[in-house]
Amino acid sequence: MPFAGEDDFLRLIDAHFPNAAPGLILGRGDDAAVIQHPGPIAVSSDLFLEDVHFRRSYFTAAAIGRKALAVNLSDLAAMGAQPLGFTLNIGAPPDLASDFWPEFFAAMAQTAARHKAVLAGGDLSRCERLAVSVTVWGGLGPAGRFLRRGQGRPGDFLFVVGELGLARAGLLGLEATGRAALTQFPAACRAHLDPTALIKAGLLLAGIAAVRGLMDVSDGLLMDLPRFLGPGLGASLDLHGFPLHAETVRYAASAGVDPIRFALEGGEDYALLGCVAPEGTGELKKRLPGARLIGVIGAAPGVWLGQSPVATGGFDHFRPAGSPKGAK
Amino acid sequence: MPFAGEDDFLRLIDAHFPNAAPGLILGRGDDAAVIQHPGPIAVSSDLFLEDVHFRRSYFTAAAIGRKALAVNLSDLAAMGAQPLGFTLNIGAPPDLASDFWPEFFAAMAQTAARHKAVLAGGDLSRCERLAVSVTVWGGLGPAGRFLRRGQGRPGDFLFVVGELGLARAGLLGLEATGRAALTQFPAACRAHLDPTALIKAGLLLAGIAAVRGLMDVSDGLLMDLPRFLGPGLGASLDLHGFPLHAETVRYAASAGVDPIRFALEGGEDYALLGCVAPEGTGELKKRLPGARLIGVIGAAPGVWLGQSPVATGGFDHFRPAGSPKGAK
Repeated sequence: MPFAGEDDFLRLIDAHFPNAAPGLILGRGDDAAVIQHPGPIAVSSDLFLEDVHFRRSYFTAAAIGRKALAVNLSDLAAMGAQPLGFTLNIGAPPDLASDFWPEFFAAMAQTAARHKAVLAGGDLSRCERLAVSVTVWGGLGPAGRFLRRGQGRPGDFLFVVGELGLARAGLLGLEATGRAALTQFPAACRAHLDPTALIKAGLLLAGIAAVRGLMDVSDGLLMDLPRFLGPGLGASLDLHGFPLHAETVRYAASAGVDPIRFALEGGEDYALLGCVAPEGTGELKKRLPGARLIGVIGAAPGVWLGQSPVATGGFDHFRPAGSPKGAK
Repeated sequence: MPFAGEDDFLRLIDAHFPNAAPGLILGRGDDAAVIQHPGPIAVSSDLFLEDVHFRRSYFTAAAIGRKALAVNLSDLAAMGAQPLGFTLNIGAPPDLASDFWPEFFAAMAQTAARHKAVLAGGDLSRCERLAVSVTVWGGLGPAGRFLRRGQGRPGDFLFVVGELGLARAGLLGLEATGRAALTQFPAACRAHLDPTALIKAGLLLAGIAAVRGLMDVSDGLLMDLPRFLGPGLGASLDLHGFPLHAETVRYAASAGVDPIRFALEGGEDYALLGCVAPEGTGELKKRLPGARLIGVIGAAPGVWLGQSPVATGGFDHFRPAGSPKGAK
């Protein structure tokens, strides 16, 4: 389908995204959409930019559409929120293949429908490189609370839901060998290309009273852990029991680095990092078997891995350019 | 202030934007902000992109910061909404002067404060060209209603609040001669560089019962009018009494085009276009003397200017590239 102009674009969006939902009083097509929600609303916004967050050489149109929304939904997962809606701003280069946008929207619409997020509006502009900016909002789940950062106390156990390092192995493989990495590291590539927002896990965690806090790991655990702990606290990590994916281990081995260290530095995991009061670990493991304990919160700043202090920090968006986010 | 990294950026944002407001339950710094508002919420989102919507050669950092927010607030003005908050996503090129961001944020923060819009979150990434994506939301004003498009009836009067064509004259002047246009067409350049969101006018119009609908004119009146009318209706325009700015007239004359036609095609006016039932024109003029009647809604499609049909249409975001939006 060749695009004669903006109208084609809007028709395509209307074909893929419903324009009605509970709580959507006025849908797309006016100066603003109108929503109404009785309780508090969690709002988050993220960019997804070509050659910063993704490359068109190894991302399909569908993967770009899915991931642009998923990285935003992941922030709602980390609040324990139930997605409600989103806005979508697109900067579109003129040179895309004619099937690009149908594939992009179909995939994004599928992700949106799965999580019950309605597209309420947005903007469209030309842009040299493909740029997607999404703002998502969500409401309370059945548990009636959101999960924040900085709520942990000394002695709380830290846990992770999801993979650590796998997406980084995929990114580095794709950057090194392009789509050939898809056969060499299929799960790792999938983790980078097509992350899942852990909405259900977030909602479930909000329902476990002993779970005190939650965030999503997007810049690597070592970068995100201090943000999660907040000032004055530290952590003692033990990842010997953490089930790293075989491809993470294999990639780290091929690169000659320690797999645990590699996993801790991995960006774009979109895993969930949480803390739970000691008395709640049993309930946590029972209700969410995929949650893995990775350490304990300490009363003083600093992060220890076994007996060794580790430098926290990781991806900085103002590092010298050249490779996508997380490719270090 | 040289930027060592993301942390400097966040400190600068915290220095300029308060992180607390009525209805903001959880401010910036977590995975999501949490807002709560009892009534319906109008949501809108717009891109503001370098070399598409603005040029750094003649926009100051302050003007970019102000306009990126103002074009979004204009959508709330067109709903008759009272701004509440916004998210801000920035794609930042590395080569900006050290005073760029302090000026950008100071100016944006001033606009935000004037309209009581709190910055609730956002994202930051590097990007070759400066890209700003804003999502705004607002609540009902004292009148207790939002103003939509497509609400007009045959016989309703059409009115405009704000200038038509002036911003286009500024854009064309700036594109032709750069900052030299600032002395030749100062008001026109100001209209393009520093548009004002007509929030107060929108709130006031929502309070006039006879005003049936409202939208903001961003792509030129001839392009936006059919969107405002909706299917099945047309309009008969008479702009002989419309007070075009002297610089609009002078610019059109210098370009050898009819000033009224030039004004109707002008993009980025950020004027308000509304319709009012015939019995309400008196109240409209009394309460908002700046509102100018420009025509009447007709019962059949098509737009007439005096005795002549005019082709509607205007800026399309997928026209061949090369000049900022609205430069035709």
